[in-house]
Amino acid sequence: MASNTTKTGQPLDRAILDSLLRRRLFYTPSFEIYGGVSGLYDYGPPGCALQANIVDTWRKHFVLEEDMLEVDCTMLTPHDVLKTSGHVDKFADWMCKDPKTGEIFRADHLVEEVLESRLKGDKEARGQKVVVDEEKDNKRKKKVKETKVVKLEDATVKEYEEVLAKIDNYNGEELGQLIVKYNITNPVTGAELLPPVSFNLMFQTSIGPSSNLRGYLRPETAQGQFLTFQKLLEFNQQSMPFASASIGKSFRNEISPRAGLLRVREFLMAEIEHFVDPEGGKKHPRFHEVQDMELAFLSREIQLSGRTEVEKMTIGKAVSTGLVDNETLGYFLARIQLFLLRIGIDESKIRLRQHMMNEMAHYATDCWDAELFTSYGWIECVGCADRSAYDLSVHKDKTGAALFVRETRQEPLHIEEWQIDLDKKKFGPRFKKESKTVEAAVDALSQELREKLSLDLEKDGKVEIDVEGVSDGKVVLEKDLIKIEKRTRVENIREYVPNVIEPSFGIGRIFYSLIEHSYWSRPGDEARGVLSFPPVIAPTKVLLVPLSSHQSFKPIVDRIALRLRRVGVSNRVDDSSASIGKRYARNDELGTPLGITVDFQSVKDNTFTLRDRDSMKQVRASEDEIVAAIKSLAEGEETWNDVFKRLPEFLGQDVE
Amino acid sequence: MASNTTKTGQPLDRAILDSLLRRRLFYTPSFEIYGGVSGLYDYGPPGCALQANIVDTWRKHFVLEEDMLEVDCTMLTPHDVLKTSGHVDKFADWMCKDPKTGEIFRADHLVEEVLESRLKGDKEARGQKVVVDEEKDNKRKKKVKETKVVKLEDATVKEYEEVLAKIDNYNGEELGQLIVKYNITNPVTGAELLPPVSFNLMFQTSIGPSSNLRGYLRPETAQGQFLTFQKLLEFNQQSMPFASASIGKSFRNEISPRAGLLRVREFLMAEIEHFVDPEGGKKHPRFHEVQDMELAFLSREIQLSGRTEVEKMTIGKAVSTGLVDNETLGYFLARIQLFLLRIGIDESKIRLRQHMMNEMAHYATDCWDAELFTSYGWIECVGCADRSAYDLSVHKDKTGAALFVRETRQEPLHIEEWQIDLDKKKFGPRFKKESKTVEAAVDALSQELREKLSLDLEKDGKVEIDVEGVSDGKVVLEKDLIKIEKRTRVENIREYVPNVIEPSFGIGRIFYSLIEHSYWSRPGDEARGVLSFPPVIAPTKVLLVPLSSHQSFKPIVDRIALRLRRVGVSNRVDDSSASIGKRYARNDELGTPLGITVDFQSVKDNTFTLRDRDSMKQVRASEDEIVAAIKSLAEGEETWNDVFKRLPEFLGQDVE
Repeated sequence: MASNTTKTGQPLDRAILDSLLRRRLFYTPSFEIYGGVSGLYDYGPPGCALQANIVDTWRKHFVLEEDMLEVDCTMLTPHDVLKTSGHVDKFADWMCKDPKTGEIFRADHLVEEVLESRLKGDKEARGQKVVVDEEKDNKRKKKVKETKVVKLEDATVKEYEEVLAKIDNYNGEELGQLIVKYNITNPVTGAELLPPVSFNLMFQTSIGPSSNLRGYLRPETAQGQFLTFQKLLEFNQQSMPFASASIGKSFRNEISPRAGLLRVREFLMAEIEHFVDPEGGKKHPRFHEVQDMELAFLSREIQLSGRTEVEKMTIGKAVSTGLVDNETLGYFLARIQLFLLRIGIDESKIRLRQHMMNEMAHYATDCWDAELFTSYGWIECVGCADRSAYDLSVHKDKTGAALFVRETRQEPLHIEEWQIDLDKKKFGPRFKKESKTVEAAVDALSQELREKLSLDLEKDGKVEIDVEGVSDGKVVLEKDLIKIEKRTRVENIREYVPNVIEPSFGIGRIFYSLIEHSYWSRPGDEARGVLSFPPVIAPTKVLLVPLSSHQSFKPIVDRIALRLRRVGVSNRVDDSSASIGKRYARNDELGTPLGITVDFQSVKDNTFTLRDRDSMKQVRASEDEIVAAIKSLAEGEETWNDVFKRLPEFLGQDVE
Repeated sequence: MASNTTKTGQPLDRAILDSLLRRRLFYTPSFEIYGGVSGLYDYGPPGCALQANIVDTWRKHFVLEEDMLEVDCTMLTPHDVLKTSGHVDKFADWMCKDPKTGEIFRADHLVEEVLESRLKGDKEARGQKVVVDEEKDNKRKKKVKETKVVKLEDATVKEYEEVLAKIDNYNGEELGQLIVKYNITNPVTGAELLPPVSFNLMFQTSIGPSSNLRGYLRPETAQGQFLTFQKLLEFNQQSMPFASASIGKSFRNEISPRAGLLRVREFLMAEIEHFVDPEGGKKHPRFHEVQDMELAFLSREIQLSGRTEVEKMTIGKAVSTGLVDNETLGYFLARIQLFLLRIGIDESKIRLRQHMMNEMAHYATDCWDAELFTSYGWIECVGCADRSAYDLSVHKDKTGAALFVRETRQEPLHIEEWQIDLDKKKFGPRFKKESKTVEAAVDALSQELREKLSLDLEKDGKVEIDVEGVSDGKVVLEKDLIKIEKRTRVENIREYVPNVIEPSFGIGRIFYSLIEHSYWSRPGDEARGVLSFPPVIAPTKVLLVPLSSHQSFKPIVDRIALRLRRVGVSNRVDDSSASIGKRYARNDELGTPLGITVDFQSVKDNTFTLRDRDSMKQVRASEDEIVAAIKSLAEGEETWNDVFKRLPEFLGQDVE
């Protein structure tokens, strides 16, 4: 079981971490000097660089590695597209309004909070110990301000508990019934609330000057990829399977945002749509590369049994036993895990949770979330769903666009079937303007019916066919008009709508989880926080500190800074008057993995000390060696241990 | 004078280029299968990679090079912020509606088009030669479908010409008067139009469930940076000057988008806000690095004289002669030019156009646009303005936030001034509850008045002061109550609102101009287009082509592809059955600078040919040497000429 501790095993104090993140400007509430807008955050310099490095690594790990076709589609999206995708009708939460104060409550959250509070009051009244679920508590801006100590009937307790267990599954009407039944009111004023109404979570706007083209800010990047499928397939020279990918902002007009970066109104997503032939078991050609990776699964079955311990097994076994539906889905689950590890996520704080049947869309084949453990509990950070052919099919049906694959069969398909020939010459004169209707009815006959009719035709010399709207709905065809025979048809072309495997990454949630997983503090000094990002991910790679403000240091510092920039290594100079220890401490909080000290020895012989953030150990070598080591560390080609082994350790000067 | 030719001097045929860009999926109208939405475009894989490489180069050239503080602020922006910035009131165009058809016209464009069409008809009627301004013509979706051949009065011709010369300067009321005066109607139906109304170009939405928090999609990224100034200054350890930077989408709800990527409703911007002390002439410490760069200036003066030839001079001279207002502005103009050259923009197609006085905002000190020449004419791609202290001041005044710099003066400031002492003990009993009002009036007295009053006091033993709202508006103070003396005040702290130099890049416009500047076609074969992007910018760096589908090639191709990926070089394999020449031709259109052919010799001795897109020359060397050369070319460390000199040329096999 993952626990709420830092990577060095200390209890994680979120208040201290939050203060560090604000102080170091990782992120900050947007428009704060105007009072702020909840659910909107700006990223400051270190946050911005950290986010860019996560995205860059994502692009290398997925797009470059697998030749994915990256696209950049607009956020503004016209109504019709999102109507077809289902978002206009279903991307909504239920809200209740207090008609007097105008205050708005998210209905499911309100019911949940009120019933939980009553159960708590009941426990207190019974003198039982009240265990607060801190994870859940933390996520909320609480609406219920005080718990009344009132004992409930035993039956009521049971009923409440049953409702709470199913709280995510109620629709608006049902939530309305619960609110009436349990007399749930505005927790502060006691006023009655209006019945729940659906609130669509998309931001609406209108495009162009005439206000009649309704549009929304996209709720996900996926739709743009689906709409471009045909062009992407052509770009890919008609070759299947392939994946598209997109990185960009999406929007969700939360009723009541909470939990910092974890539930915001504007967020960065990275989504992959892997298009695959539904036939042939959705094999993946590179599955063998990952099949021995062990992952932590929280299957549907485990969840149904009420347990929370994950089961560890290889992804190979998970696919072969059917726990994970197919190789392609399994391949991506493993690749997701590899990505998370690569950026520095703690392996013991990753689990793959399978969606319950009632959680999945009706068309989905299987769906898993990569959840990361944080002080807010387990957080869904990556979704990975097999969405079947749903998305392409609905847009294809709506627009008539050719969102399918047309391919020559390697082996022509031989189909035995009952075929019908009509004698067109006699047919026309006989049925006149009704000919087409009758023909269409004949064409529509099922294979089963054709077989039966062929027997009738042989036996009676005629068949009777239902044709709606023609004479009395029955038409008799004699054997000089119709022939029914079993023949073999050869099909050389195959058309199919690809299935979609969709790994979908919430970058902001990964960003926040990574910060928690990277955070610890120097033993003995809680205030000295460290963010141990891997060098590839760290916002700034190197801190340059001149020993003092002595004038001989500045040209050297400038020269090294320039040289590092030229090889693409981000660095910052701190020539403030603070002690070297203080300057390093500041950069530990910024997660800067390396530090160069420029001292009097450097002026003499052009050697420098290089300091490792995590171990605080130092090596000393020539400028060329130090720059080469930094480049190799920043690009992830070497670890500090490699460098430490090959360059001489420096012990002479204690910078702490 | 820049001319509309490709880099090899051929006339640029935009229709052919457009078809290439569509075919190769650089970009494509968004939501096309739903009928499309004008002014919205999606970037396909090569466009997306090209854009990402431009942005990456921008980040290295500006952010990394100058230690800028990059921030990522939200696009959703509450009303109050954009009210203060002036966008709610002024970010608008004038539009006229046809009340019958509902059709909407942008008022200035309509007046311009109709008058131009009448002048054209007049010329035809007079039998004069009509010269069509193709540039202008090209930019438009024309509303005027046909020109009537009607001779005008000479005076009318002159009047029309005067109106057209000032067309950008009319406000809504004036445009309405022109429409009435010249009887301008719906050009197709002849129907009268409603008077011009202001149409705000921001997309509006509402944030949160209660619809009372009005918001907009940001029209620029700048505001987020201004609002964060105080935190950024602190992050920068109170050190000035510094710059913030931001890369992100902005939005503009165009009345009638046109000219492809050049005027769109959603676009990527990169903006820098360089905060500088207004005192001391806005010097820049790195100006000497660029001062000898020669730039092409189209000054205000040249424009006023009606000429269009630029004046070339060094930026050093431009600043020292006062053409460019200050060093910091000049430094950025040079850095902008260096950036444009670095990504491959044609130097002969860059000019710096100074804003006319009436074009600039009232608070701006100086403003220049870097314009790039394309088949649509000169296009504003980068703006570079000295915005004085305007932005920080308005937000500071509105919110009271500390958007200023507070610094200890190196030399304390000695100020001689008239100071007033009031005898508080007597003052209170005398004026009672009016004391504060009187005191405030005294405090507010100007230095000038104080000097005069000191003389009165000496002469008459009393002074008379205006105090609104107290007795009859006059208060007399005797010399036992008030003392006025000239004294020296020492000021150790200085507070100032920094000025802002703002280089602002329209990435989509630069992207499109770069494509035009990079395009040419192989002599003798117009259909064989080439996009000669520099390797650093090219969407894909290397094409891998096996000579045939022979099975011995595949493992080699896979191995090299993997190896290139590992060193971060994007590549694509084309193992289709097309001829090698065809496969290279496709990738010339995609701008892929390098190609590796895997042939039977490769199987034998692991050597490969490397082909240069532009010269079509080839070298042959070992796998290690080829991979090293590619990495060095892709990172811009070597040019093809360098590689061609040091590796043996390969002539044996003609792949065309």
